[in-house]
Amino acid sequence: MNAEIITTGTELLLGHVINTDAAIIARELAAQGINLFFIHTVGDNAERIEKTLTDALSRSDLILISGGLGPTPDDLTCEVVAKTLGKKLYTDENSLKKLEKYFQGRPISANQIKQAQFPEGSIILNNAHGTAPGCIVEWAGKTIIMLPGPPSELAPMLENEVRPWLARKNCGVIVTHIIRTFGIGEGDAAVKIDSILNSANPTIAPYAADGEMFVKITARADNDLNAEKLLKPVINEVENLLEDYCYGRDSDTLASKVVSLLKERRLMLASAESCTGGWLAQQITSCAGSSAVFQLGIVSYANSAKEKILSIPNNILEKYGAVSFETAEYMAKGIHNLSGSNLGISITGIAGPDGGSMEKPLGLVYFCLYDGKQSIMTKMEPRPIWPGRDKIRLKAVKTALDMIRRYLTVLPIPDKY
Amino acid sequence: MNAEIITTGTELLLGHVINTDAAIIARELAAQGINLFFIHTVGDNAERIEKTLTDALSRSDLILISGGLGPTPDDLTCEVVAKTLGKKLYTDENSLKKLEKYFQGRPISANQIKQAQFPEGSIILNNAHGTAPGCIVEWAGKTIIMLPGPPSELAPMLENEVRPWLARKNCGVIVTHIIRTFGIGEGDAAVKIDSILNSANPTIAPYAADGEMFVKITARADNDLNAEKLLKPVINEVENLLEDYCYGRDSDTLASKVVSLLKERRLMLASAESCTGGWLAQQITSCAGSSAVFQLGIVSYANSAKEKILSIPNNILEKYGAVSFETAEYMAKGIHNLSGSNLGISITGIAGPDGGSMEKPLGLVYFCLYDGKQSIMTKMEPRPIWPGRDKIRLKAVKTALDMIRRYLTVLPIPDKY
Repeated sequence: MNAEIITTGTELLLGHVINTDAAIIARELAAQGINLFFIHTVGDNAERIEKTLTDALSRSDLILISGGLGPTPDDLTCEVVAKTLGKKLYTDENSLKKLEKYFQGRPISANQIKQAQFPEGSIILNNAHGTAPGCIVEWAGKTIIMLPGPPSELAPMLENEVRPWLARKNCGVIVTHIIRTFGIGEGDAAVKIDSILNSANPTIAPYAADGEMFVKITARADNDLNAEKLLKPVINEVENLLEDYCYGRDSDTLASKVVSLLKERRLMLASAESCTGGWLAQQITSCAGSSAVFQLGIVSYANSAKEKILSIPNNILEKYGAVSFETAEYMAKGIHNLSGSNLGISITGIAGPDGGSMEKPLGLVYFCLYDGKQSIMTKMEPRPIWPGRDKIRLKAVKTALDMIRRYLTVLPIPDKY
Repeated sequence: MNAEIITTGTELLLGHVINTDAAIIARELAAQGINLFFIHTVGDNAERIEKTLTDALSRSDLILISGGLGPTPDDLTCEVVAKTLGKKLYTDENSLKKLEKYFQGRPISANQIKQAQFPEGSIILNNAHGTAPGCIVEWAGKTIIMLPGPPSELAPMLENEVRPWLARKNCGVIVTHIIRTFGIGEGDAAVKIDSILNSANPTIAPYAADGEMFVKITARADNDLNAEKLLKPVINEVENLLEDYCYGRDSDTLASKVVSLLKERRLMLASAESCTGGWLAQQITSCAGSSAVFQLGIVSYANSAKEKILSIPNNILEKYGAVSFETAEYMAKGIHNLSGSNLGISITGIAGPDGGSMEKPLGLVYFCLYDGKQSIMTKMEPRPIWPGRDKIRLKAVKTALDMIRRYLTVLPIPDKY
């Protein structure tokens, strides 16, 4: 089966947005063993969308179009597809009801109603993250799949709605697992797993994102069970090769891993943050059920807050500065005592753009984890080039989470009582 | 002048790489006032590159091709362009000398020498960051520009070599401004600005992202000054039509706006968060210089933390529950007193997936802003469909920031002392 992608949106032609949709769809097609020969981007212009679609239909079996399903006048995709195929638009009652529910009785404009209108004979694709559903239309032995433009809506629709439909039409199933690691770069990881990188089924693809490194392992088989059978030994091999850099699989995050390790060990954590400004607490509390293991976080941004709330002696701050092992340790002990939790974690550093010096450059961050007996300390070294405030802060948050994960992983799990 | 981009590379069709080249080139064309109607991606396949180039030449004046200039057998761009235009390849002596220098006397393979071969009549573009130069070929009134695939080589070549060449050939600039709003949907905003949506220059495009709504206004003119002259009245009109939903322009965020309003008014803010778990503090502290206006944030996730740190009477929590106006007000007053800041903001709600009830459903969030005299209260109503924990939390964070912004905007600015 040959496929072609058409991404629409004037913002793509102006370069305001990088075309992640195309890569997301392309990866899905590759995983399903579908050939992709062309990707096109056109603006929100009916004539040019129609021209591109007509060309694509002349040479490919499957056309995926992203964008142009929303409520504004420049959202044209369904209209143009219907016109090109000589089909009429109809209003899908179920989609209309969802829209009405969304608007809670407020009047719905004609523009909004457009989102419930599809070419005749469409299969509607549920949008769990937005108001505009997608759809699949079949015509003269060809298939056209329309997907919303925002990647946060497109990606789950592709995974949850399009993948099983295509797999049924295509051949068997595709199953993917992701090995998640922290603390190792893409290049170093590729070297470690080099011996198995050329595997054809499952395929193995390392990639990096947001300071973490992932390995995606994808198997094709006639059913899920056989796919999992192919995957299992490869997953084990990758995890062995990457050792304790691996923190989890699939939808795990460093924070969700920390929360589940804390739950298993029946321990409570509390946080004292300076440069990360609450980001660590935000990550932990983004996990459902985190209230069982997290009660209190302090963002002691000013020195006065460190003294007053965390009881850090003024002379420590004066002698060593807020960004030091000493202050990190007092912060961890302070939050441990204040919260009554089993573990106190602290972060203090210089995110920039101001506040750096020769002695304490931008990107220097200290951490302490205190468990009532011992203090575990670590330090994040600055990069030669300052990568920006939020990159440093996020890396510090992940470093802290990884520190807690490594501490907890080797602790024994208490017996059930 | 109409342009078209062809990005080549099988890795793009496999989704291994996101197409940043296209966005980089598109931005450059927009800045030069050159119309871009199509972007195509094809693999490293001579036939399909030739087909795409032939189509592009039939309708556009300027074709930019990225990728395929390197030394491997699948680098085909110069060959295919020469063939399509009926030109021969020649070896550029200067480029060959640079290659020899690069290889420092080691033997150079025929594949490597390919990097010094260009279609007859080419203008060579220096590659300051790699071995493969780019080139410009003119043919039958059309221009073809070939650029290397790696963005780290393409971007500087585009800026330093192509930009001045195109500017000499071309005329004019494109300038864009963004109006940023919160609290109004894309559809409602489109209705409000409907009367001017069809403007041709500047163009006006509303779009939504992360629970906010933006209006992008783009003007084309012969120089920056004249573009800004065209933009000014339209920006004012859009801001008038969207009233106080507008919080900023261009790179402003709700948090950066709050930080700058606080600075202007010389006020300090402190936060007490429950369901948002530190996200509000994280947003505020992501702004450089926020330490001047933000000293302390508390993530009082458990009731015990609310009692102990924020001094909320136990009977208030028992009578009204943690998610209530009453608790929100005590939290705001508690953090106001504890921090000594001018303003205390609190957030308490039910993010889910657990903890909802008929009376207090998932997505219900209470807010209080306390300034030492008055309490301003607001409430976020649940949506009919629970959108997920982090969507509720992010919306709550933005609602709190917008509440602070609206409070500060009407406060007088103190005189300079």
